[in-house]
Amino acid sequence: MSSNSFGRLLRVTTFGESHGPGIGCIVDGCPPGLPLSAEDIVPDLKRRATGKTRHTSQRREADAVTIQSGVFEGVTTGTPIALLIENTDARSKDYSNIKDQYRPGHADYTYDAKYGFRDYRGGGRSSARETTMRVAAGALARKYLAHHCGIEVQACVVQVGEQRAGTVDWSEVENNPFFAPDPDWVEPLEAYMDALRKSGDSAGARVDVVARGVPAGWGEPVYGKLDAELAAALMSINAVKGVEIGAGFASVEQPGSEHRDEITPEGFLSNHAGGVLGGISTGQDITASVAFKPTSSLRLPGVTIDRHGEPVEVVTKGRHDPCVGLRAPPIVEAMTLLVLMDQYLRHRAQNADVEPPFVIPPGGEHDR
Amino acid sequence: MSSNSFGRLLRVTTFGESHGPGIGCIVDGCPPGLPLSAEDIVPDLKRRATGKTRHTSQRREADAVTIQSGVFEGVTTGTPIALLIENTDARSKDYSNIKDQYRPGHADYTYDAKYGFRDYRGGGRSSARETTMRVAAGALARKYLAHHCGIEVQACVVQVGEQRAGTVDWSEVENNPFFAPDPDWVEPLEAYMDALRKSGDSAGARVDVVARGVPAGWGEPVYGKLDAELAAALMSINAVKGVEIGAGFASVEQPGSEHRDEITPEGFLSNHAGGVLGGISTGQDITASVAFKPTSSLRLPGVTIDRHGEPVEVVTKGRHDPCVGLRAPPIVEAMTLLVLMDQYLRHRAQNADVEPPFVIPPGGEHDR
Amino acid sequence: MSSNSFGRLLRVTTFGESHGPGIGCIVDGCPPGLPLSAEDIVPDLKRRATGKTRHTSQRREADAVTIQSGVFEGVTTGTPIALLIENTDARSKDYSNIKDQYRPGHADYTYDAKYGFRDYRGGGRSSARETTMRVAAGALARKYLAHHCGIEVQACVVQVGEQRAGTVDWSEVENNPFFAPDPDWVEPLEAYMDALRKSGDSAGARVDVVARGVPAGWGEPVYGKLDAELAAALMSINAVKGVEIGAGFASVEQPGSEHRDEITPEGFLSNHAGGVLGGISTGQDITASVAFKPTSSLRLPGVTIDRHGEPVEVVTKGRHDPCVGLRAPPIVEAMTLLVLMDQYLRHRAQNADVEPPFVIPPGGEHDR
Amino acid sequence: MSSNSFGRLLRVTTFGESHGPGIGCIVDGCPPGLPLSAEDIVPDLKRRATGKTRHTSQRREADAVTIQSGVFEGVTTGTPIALLIENTDARSKDYSNIKDQYRPGHADYTYDAKYGFRDYRGGGRSSARETTMRVAAGALARKYLAHHCGIEVQACVVQVGEQRAGTVDWSEVENNPFFAPDPDWVEPLEAYMDALRKSGDSAGARVDVVARGVPAGWGEPVYGKLDAELAAALMSINAVKGVEIGAGFASVEQPGSEHRDEITPEGFLSNHAGGVLGGISTGQDITASVAFKPTSSLRLPGVTIDRHGEPVEVVTKGRHDPCVGLRAPPIVEAMTLLVLMDQYLRHRAQNADVEPPFVIPPGGEHDR
Repeated sequence: MSSNSFGRLLRVTTFGESHGPGIGCIVDGCPPGLPLSAEDIVPDLKRRATGKTRHTSQRREADAVTIQSGVFEGVTTGTPIALLIENTDARSKDYSNIKDQYRPGHADYTYDAKYGFRDYRGGGRSSARETTMRVAAGALARKYLAHHCGIEVQACVVQVGEQRAGTVDWSEVENNPFFAPDPDWVEPLEAYMDALRKSGDSAGARVDVVARGVPAGWGEPVYGKLDAELAAALMSINAVKGVEIGAGFASVEQPGSEHRDEITPEGFLSNHAGGVLGGISTGQDITASVAFKPTSSLRLPGVTIDRHGEPVEVVTKGRHDPCVGLRAPPIVEAMTLLVLMDQYLRHRAQNADVEPPFVIPPGGEHDR
Repeated sequence: MSSNSFGRLLRVTTFGESHGPGIGCIVDGCPPGLPLSAEDIVPDLKRRATGKTRHTSQRREADAVTIQSGVFEGVTTGTPIALLIENTDARSKDYSNIKDQYRPGHADYTYDAKYGFRDYRGGGRSSARETTMRVAAGALARKYLAHHCGIEVQACVVQVGEQRAGTVDWSEVENNPFFAPDPDWVEPLEAYMDALRKSGDSAGARVDVVARGVPAGWGEPVYGKLDAELAAALMSINAVKGVEIGAGFASVEQPGSEHRDEITPEGFLSNHAGGVLGGISTGQDITASVAFKPTSSLRLPGVTIDRHGEPVEVVTKGRHDPCVGLRAPPIVEAMTLLVLMDQYLRHRAQNADVEPPFVIPPGGEHDR
Repeated sequence: MSSNSFGRLLRVTTFGESHGPGIGCIVDGCPPGLPLSAEDIVPDLKRRATGKTRHTSQRREADAVTIQSGVFEGVTTGTPIALLIENTDARSKDYSNIKDQYRPGHADYTYDAKYGFRDYRGGGRSSARETTMRVAAGALARKYLAHHCGIEVQACVVQVGEQRAGTVDWSEVENNPFFAPDPDWVEPLEAYMDALRKSGDSAGARVDVVARGVPAGWGEPVYGKLDAELAAALMSINAVKGVEIGAGFASVEQPGSEHRDEITPEGFLSNHAGGVLGGISTGQDITASVAFKPTSSLRLPGVTIDRHGEPVEVVTKGRHDPCVGLRAPPIVEAMTLLVLMDQYLRHRAQNADVEPPFVIPPGGEHDR
Repeated sequence: MSSNSFGRLLRVTTFGESHGPGIGCIVDGCPPGLPLSAEDIVPDLKRRATGKTRHTSQRREADAVTIQSGVFEGVTTGTPIALLIENTDARSKDYSNIKDQYRPGHADYTYDAKYGFRDYRGGGRSSARETTMRVAAGALARKYLAHHCGIEVQACVVQVGEQRAGTVDWSEVENNPFFAPDPDWVEPLEAYMDALRKSGDSAGARVDVVARGVPAGWGEPVYGKLDAELAAALMSINAVKGVEIGAGFASVEQPGSEHRDEITPEGFLSNHAGGVLGGISTGQDITASVAFKPTSSLRLPGVTIDRHGEPVEVVTKGRHDPCVGLRAPPIVEAMTLLVLMDQYLRHRAQNADVEPPFVIPPGGEHDR
């Protein structure tokens, strides 16, 4: 078994290695009738792309996506939609020196342990290049959810290493190369990143995400809870080490009388729950936060062994991000969008006829 | 659709409401030949049970589990194993006063929003009573993994509200009613809980879990990553709001040169990764941490509305845990065990023939 | 892995052995709001039951089904519905003589080959007793599909050994113990069965099934075709060796000009397709036919070996059906109903918004 | 939902329309270490290809398959294997005249009923062109099963319209363009096909398949039975209307004393079961038979309606097979191979440790 598919009713299956001929995905289960072209996908791919500033990997991929199937006369047909992207800027020679080494913090060793050997070029299948197709599929889900349900999903970087954003102004996020929600934080962040790059070290990041406009009732008890699937989706992104929903770990220290979001006919009075109760959406903003570890590909030498068990010193050359979290928001958005669209289809499968007794207006300030 | 099954090759499907005639599960896919009787399941059920001390809900369920199928002459046959438990101490009259109310922080409203109405007795399907069957199924996985792979999974409570354990001594966990890993913490915790109970308020908790003895190579890229599935499994437990793997959110502030676990022929030098790289186990201890929110059922009155949108004051009577996290370790262990056994079977399906080039001895101190 | 679940969105998981304490199933994914009680299930269980006439096995099971969950105040809640039936008339001593033997035509050997050993009492999990739960779950689907979609599913026996029904009058099927659609065939069939029983031999049967009222558009290309899933569902019934849709094998000899069902504004002119084109329903009657092999449990001695490879003579005593096909129609109906309800939910998940350009009235005489 | 994936542990997902830019598939779950190149796939694609003789459609596709991922240095890596084929000989103008018509016997109407509209060029997704990717994926399974298990799967055409093969000599099948197992039947078949083509009508066919070398123990009770999954796999092929396992419908008329395959220490004495008992392989040849309906695309005019409900006369021009069954054997083999490889992986997931008490040598003449 090998698990390269995601979702139940909207099902995305990806393929491709960092330095193979190309990458791609099949999106199965999209309802018919959605206007879709490559132009709908390009903007999110560009938001995720490397090489835009000096702060990210200098690999420059065209990311020219083509739609191979499932769209006819500009509209989805209900049959599988295949998206392909050629790899154009792979430099495999960069990696020959580490082909027998197990880079600390990488999947080199674990792939060898699982499969007996691996495609070592650029990390092969374990490369973050795979996330390109998540973003491509997510762009489809974004369009569908916007059109049909008025849903909007947005992510931003709120912390890099020990540097934290001072405020979260969602309207600022796209105005800088860091997906930073605080305009006053951009300059110090540039300085921080320049210093980091020079040091040869790397930094982690925290990314927040919010989904606005999700109606109450989405999500499936007991093992398909909306927050459980969101957790899996976000934890499946390369380098993620933690996921919080709503107040997250802060809820450990909140008394119940504070944490429980009280309700009035005009709406919830707070949103510590992050828009999910019992695994089902409340109609409030759905909020989550994600921890990205620091990149393990460093110019600083490290201690490791090779495939034969011999000790070696490793120094990563190649082209790498000193902080992968800086390119993560489009990926975090994509996974959130895919979970939501899948849950929407599942909800309407079982509950298309349901009329809720009362709809609470969203309201409620939330923790993030 | 409705998602009451968990796992792919070892598949657990649960049923039952808090106050219905009983609860149960079907465990499908267990290999044949495992000696199994109800006695193997009872200890974990007792560890999870309510009513053992004054610090947990006073509901006293016999939790007398019976095996209905899949075991013949004391040994699993490879066919589905059904486990049943009767509900014996359900007091539905406790709930009649809140049947039309939406208790803040509960799934009352979201179930109504999803299904149009709900079984309000004791929370119905959203009750933590469902976790009993997770523990029962987990006990089977525990026995299998111990016998076949020498794996051991253990969880403990490291924080309650603002109170934190001073040390983590895993050998102390079963010596007190709090699953506390620090003997010096037990007395202050008792005092804290007594005060909490008197106050009518509730507290959250942080639970740590460790899986020892998992060999390198388990877990499936890309969407079935071991840590991604662990995140879903743990987040699917009632009241969980956050999950960390290894260093978790602390990795945001670690420089890459610190976070990456260096390797020598004698083993890893640290375990910030929590025993998972690229979604696949490294052979080190697998470590995770889980945030439980404070119970929302409080004796303190709260503001809410009823099904008709009218404002009401809610006061929960019934029998409730002031800190659900205190009974959570067996549930956290169970979900971890189920994920591991499922991944084991998946790994051997695809990779039974694989011989890894080199096996790194585990080693490595970890963050939790 | 072990596959005791059926369906994707309406998911039935069964458990239980012929001579264990009981059998049961969990039906997951049923929409909320369906009035349901045990009384809805009993009639189909009775139709399937043994011991009603001298022509079937004399085992007499009460088949007293209880609903354990998922129904509140008489109505489905959207949570999993567990159905249980105790085994009350199991006589395990009947089987002790054959516990080491591989009865020809049974699953004795193949279970041993797969699992290393088996529960030999009454065939264990391979017993037709398992089909009881298919019928129970099917009764739920029957009620749902009748209420929500006006769908009716009916099966009958059209051939026993070399004896064939002269006509198919669906209104006669429930008027005799053979599910025979031809009143003139009942008497000869009784004589045939009496002779068969005396001979100690057994006979196969052909069962036809029709689903009326299925609208056009159900079914999923390419691997989830309505007819493909129907084929799997029917072939999964014990003793089935063949499945036809519409004209079935007769279509091999039909010229295309005859087989293709022409269309007028008033409807189709024929129904050789059996109501399915491209894996999707046409709105016509869906028709299928199923071959049941003769029972392998005979009083006539047979040649076989035991678990040690030693030759032995086998004579089945116990209580057996000389023609299992005679009790099969309720099972065939149940599997058809479950496939249809599952496909209905899947269809509405993806295509709830679709408006077909034109709806062809059904019409069209069909081959069966 | 939309079901373009097949298999559980070896999972094939296909995409592509008849006249889109290309077709492809992702094969997920293949064990690592299998030598694989496009050359392994080409022979089966050629066997399936159109345009080789005057008896099949004159569309001439290069079917130049490329491997996009999952193979490194000539060997599978355990990650998803993507296969792509460009469409090079699509002539969409051929279809413009029927874009608004519902061709009798086609999926035109049902796709419109399901999705509201359709890609009408060459049948879009409902075209048999999709089966190309089944054959490509099947070639991978063929290689794996041959290398690892010594399994061989072969199919042949035993009947075309009313013409039947006189004998079945499996060694003759590849010596003629009809996959005919009887050398004396080739000439009459050519004459028959020439006459058929001239007439403008079409014919059905019966295809037999055998899998040799499958060990006892593969297949999963109860809903994942080997024969049930085979039935679904074969029925999912375009134009299939019936599936038999072993004796199939003939078993209705066999007395039980004849049908049950008796056993001696030297092997089974017959194989009416088709190598499957209780859904699990017996170690004998697995045999099945499949009915293909006559093509519905005829030059003979037919009565139908258009999308607006108006009556029209339809005459198919384009390029079509007068008997699709003549190209079906490679597709039937592919689906059989995919089912077997999937079941193999599932079997070893659950039962890798099992030691059967006794292995019966296969033996046993079979019905087909």
